[in-house]
Order: sequence, then C-alpha cells, then structure tokens
Amino acid sequence: MKKLINEVDDVITDALKGIEASDENVRVDHQNRVILRATPKEKGKVALVSGGGSGHEPLHGGFVGLGMLDAACAGQMFTSPTPDQMQAATTAVDAGAGVLHIVKNYTGDVMNFEMAAEIAADEGVKVATVVVADDVAVQDSLYTAGRRGVGLTVLLEKIVGAAAEEGRDLDAVVAVANKVNEGGRSMGMALTSCTVPAAGKPTFDLPEDEMEIGIGIHGEPGRHREKIGSARDIAKQLVDPILHDLDYAGSDVIVMVNGMGATPLIELYLMYGEVKALLDEAGVTIARNLVGNYITSLDMAGCSVTLLKADEEILGLWDAPVKTAGLRWGL
Amino acid sequence: MKKLINEVDDVITDALKGIEASDENVRVDHQNRVILRATPKEKGKVALVSGGGSGHEPLHGGFVGLGMLDAACAGQMFTSPTPDQMQAATTAVDAGAGVLHIVKNYTGDVMNFEMAAEIAADEGVKVATVVVADDVAVQDSLYTAGRRGVGLTVLLEKIVGAAAEEGRDLDAVVAVANKVNEGGRSMGMALTSCTVPAAGKPTFDLPEDEMEIGIGIHGEPGRHREKIGSARDIAKQLVDPILHDLDYAGSDVIVMVNGMGATPLIELYLMYGEVKALLDEAGVTIARNLVGNYITSLDMAGCSVTLLKADEEILGLWDAPVKTAGLRWGL
Repeated sequence: MKKLINEVDDVITDALKGIEASDENVRVDHQNRVILRATPKEKGKVALVSGGGSGHEPLHGGFVGLGMLDAACAGQMFTSPTPDQMQAATTAVDAGAGVLHIVKNYTGDVMNFEMAAEIAADEGVKVATVVVADDVAVQDSLYTAGRRGVGLTVLLEKIVGAAAEEGRDLDAVVAVANKVNEGGRSMGMALTSCTVPAAGKPTFDLPEDEMEIGIGIHGEPGRHREKIGSARDIAKQLVDPILHDLDYAGSDVIVMVNGMGATPLIELYLMYGEVKALLDEAGVTIARNLVGNYITSLDMAGCSVTLLKADEEILGLWDAPVKTAGLRWGL
Repeated sequence: MKKLINEVDDVITDALKGIEASDENVRVDHQNRVILRATPKEKGKVALVSGGGSGHEPLHGGFVGLGMLDAACAGQMFTSPTPDQMQAATTAVDAGAGVLHIVKNYTGDVMNFEMAAEIAADEGVKVATVVVADDVAVQDSLYTAGRRGVGLTVLLEKIVGAAAEEGRDLDAVVAVANKVNEGGRSMGMALTSCTVPAAGKPTFDLPEDEMEIGIGIHGEPGRHREKIGSARDIAKQLVDPILHDLDYAGSDVIVMVNGMGATPLIELYLMYGEVKALLDEAGVTIARNLVGNYITSLDMAGCSVTLLKADEEILGLWDAPVKTAGLRWGL
C-alpha cells in the first residue's frame, strides 16, 4: 500500500488536523469529528449539515464555508458518521431558522441522519432532510436501497448553500434542494480499484486491461466490466444512460466531469471535451461546468459525469460567491 | 496502461480541445498549441508567457487568465515546446510593454525560450526572462544544468501575474520575479512512477515498498530511494533540505503542498498538517497556503513542498484577484 499517511488508525484524525491548519475559515470539533465554519452564520439563517464516510475529499469537509455548508461530519473511511456526530453538528450550527441535512443515499447515512434529526428535533431544532439519489447506474446497490447519491451532492451543496446564505427560509431552501435533486443525474466509471488504509489492499480486483462502468464511490459494483475503451467511448457510456434517464434536450445544464482521486487533470480535460461533444449532439447546452476532483474514492482512477438542469434561479445560486477549500469564487 | 484517452498521438490535441471548451476565459491557437486569454490584456501592460512539456496540468495552461499568464505553450508530453510556439505566443500577447518569459530550468526549455526571445526581439518585442530554479534536491539532473524548476513556478506565475496586471513596467515585473525566485525553494518525492502515453509503460520502476526522495517532475532520479516511511518522516525529508538551503526562520512564508497527479486530497491535507508542525517548530510562520494538485507528473503518486518568503508586497500580490481554471479567487 503506497500512501502518505502515518498510522493506519490515525488517517482521519491526522487529515482533520491538516484541514483545520490549512483553512482559516474552518475549525474542527476533533472529539466529534465535525468540520465547522470558524465564523458561524448570522442568526436567523438556515444552516446546512452534511457528512458521510471519509475518503471522498474534498467532499464534504472541503465544502464547509461561506456559501456552502455550515458543518460536515467525517465518518470512518467509506463509513457513515454516527448519529452522535450529526446531532452535535446540527445543534452547533442551528441559528434559529432550522437545519437542512444533506444526505447521500446510502443506507447507513440515511438511517443515522434520521436518528440525528429526531434527537435534534427533541432538542427543539427544526430539521429538514434532502436525500441525494442521482446515480443512474444501478437501481439498488450493495449499500443502498434505491439509487446511490454521488456527484450531484457537490452541485447541491453549492446551490442550496447559496440559497441559505441569501436568507431564504427552511421551506424555500428545501424547495431548491428538491429541484436540484429532481434535475440532476450522474454516472461513473473506474479504471482501477481503491485501497482503504485499514484494509491495506485494493477493495476489488480489476484486471490491467479492464474498466468498470457504473461504479459506486466506494468501489461497489456497477453495471458491467469490459476492456478499456477510448475516452470517446467511455464518455458515451456515461452520458447516454443519463440522457436516457432524464430528458435534457433543449435544457441548459451545469456539467461536472469529476475525477475519482487518482486521475490526472489532463485526462479530465480530455474527457470534458468528449462529454461536451456528446451534449452538443444531443441539443443540451452547457451553461456552467466543473472539471476536477470533487467527490473522490481515495486512490481510484476513473471519472464520473453529472448533469443538472439549470434555470435562471439555479444559475444565479451557482454563480453566488463561495469560499471553501474545495470551491472558491467571487470572494 | 490505464488512461482516459483516445489515440496515444492525440492526447494533447484532445486535452487542448477540452480545456478550451471548459474555460470561456481562454482560447486555444491549436496550430501552435498555445493557450491564450479569450480577452487580451489592456494595451500598455506587460504580458506573461510560460509553457513547457505537457503532463503537469494545471500548469501551465490552467493558469492562463486574469491575474496570471497571458499565454502558455503546450509541448509534447514532458518535452519542451518549440521556439516557434513560444514566438507565436510572445507576439500574440505583446501589448506594447514587453513580455516576460517564465521558464522552468530544464535545458530544452531554456534553450528554446532563448531562441524565441531572440526572434521576438528581432520583431521589435521587448522580452525579458526569468528562469525558475527552486528544486533543492539535486544540483544538476538528467535534463538540467543547475537546479530544476518545479513548484515555485506556480507561485511565481500567480504573484508576477498580479504585478503585471497592476500595470507595473517590465523592469518592475522582472524585479518581482527575481525576488520570488530568490526566496523560493522546493523538494518532492514519489510513491509511484508515471506513464507517458506514448511509452505505454512506467518511466521507471519503483518497488511496491519503496519511495524516491527528491524526484523530478518527469520522474528523473532524485536523491535516493528507501522504504516508504510515515507521512511525518516524509514531510521531514522534504522540509529539512529546504530549511537547510535557505534560512526561513523568522520569515512569513507561502507554503504549497502539491500532489503529483494521483495523490488523493485526504493525503495532501494530512501532509500539510505534518509540514505545518515542522515549520512551527522551526519558527517559520505560514502566512498563506495552497494544498492540491498544481504541478503534476501525469499519474505519479507523491507530493512536493514549496516554501516562499512572503513580505507585504508578495502577500499583496498573492491576494490579488485571479481567475484561471487552476486558481481562482476574488472574481
């Protein structure tokens, strides 16, 4: 196993120290493993809490800051945070206007966020939840009832974060979250497996000449394996199922071409060119894009494509200033 | 070879199409393989041209835009661009106040930029050159007389870009470039080799339990190989030679912890924590930092550390707005 780590058991603790040291705009509650804004949001605004297993950085901790999340809970590697962590985050950031939980659709995450929401509600915090379920690859999966929540989470945290920052109330913020959820779809693929430090060996085997189409962000199986194709062919295998699932023709969209962690940027740029060519053909207009590593699977090589329908409201929220370790503009 | 590419011979062409498609603020001269600002700088301001072998993305093409470069020449993979490319870039961006060539110290790049400067001078363009030579690992290397130019190039392009944007004249811009060059040092390491697409196999072999300390950005040999150590030990092996080479005690610095292309962000955050602890111990104050993939070596896993002395002038230029694919803030 080739990794820049100290002890296997300390990876998350050490990484949280590094995140806190590198970004003056966040602080870390190390006991609860919650990343919070250094300066809390103004009273009266809706707060956003997300979180999930570690190993997907910059998601979620790298998206805490002005214009995005108020807090992110870091679970063990590829494992949901506990309800205790989520509840601590929720009560810490509530500014009196309620808290939205942004949950990727994985069974453990959904269950734990539900419990945390109940506890927080008992303590008088108004909690709403959006469950992101954008992965068109499989209907159910190893860890999920229904579709997995993947790349759309990044776009949702940005857009809904802007709505909350504007001061919209909890119902209005939830409405934006639902709109994003309804208009967004993703599909991913892997060239290689990934290695969880505690396991010390790759999560699965993928022969030197094969790729997996429809992979999940924990290396859980996708649709099928086949010989590695061209970038053009891979782009088609990611874009076609998305367009087949939801009619994007004639729509403006935000597109993300996301790297799985070990994919060089030159390949992501190249993939973006292929994705754009396919969308041009399909009559889909790219209004905004994001190319880079935003929701990763440790050291997996591969990529995912996310499309989101973007009307004027969505684009306005997308363009609003954001200042986080993972996304930053306008400030 | 596991890569998201089409034909091996088309990687750079295809990637340039993707870069152009993804960033509305740049355009590409495909014949000369030059990435340019979509909107040229105002007349009367110094223009900055850089470039080098491809495979180090986002360097240099991802740093073209407001507040950084005016043009970047993309060479073949790990191979200097030609004088023709550089000359085309230089004459294209000259706004009447002269052009600064930012050159990483590799023999081919230095020679070709010299030829391009001569041709451009003959055409009446005032050209100055700064050769970045910040790598403390080795005195000479496989491709270099003197120190290699590595991570500092990223910081220099940002800082000098801001100086040019402010409207400083060529002498003043060169003075800033020299100041950055004098106050900056880097050192890198690799956990794995990298694969140039045309070669189809790793540039060098690195056993499963070994790392290379002092590696160059093309996989050229560093100082030595040894068994993989802890992140703490690796940070020390990168920071100590830098501090030994230049006295940073008592200085404010900008620190970059840079990934080599295939290193997950969680490991870079973790490394940043270790680097910061060592600098704290050494009495070096981190004023700003950058953690991520900024100057890469295709699919190499590993990292580098860059330190730069940062006085008020340097920090002011660092904080100035920038809007490029690779770095963006304040706009």
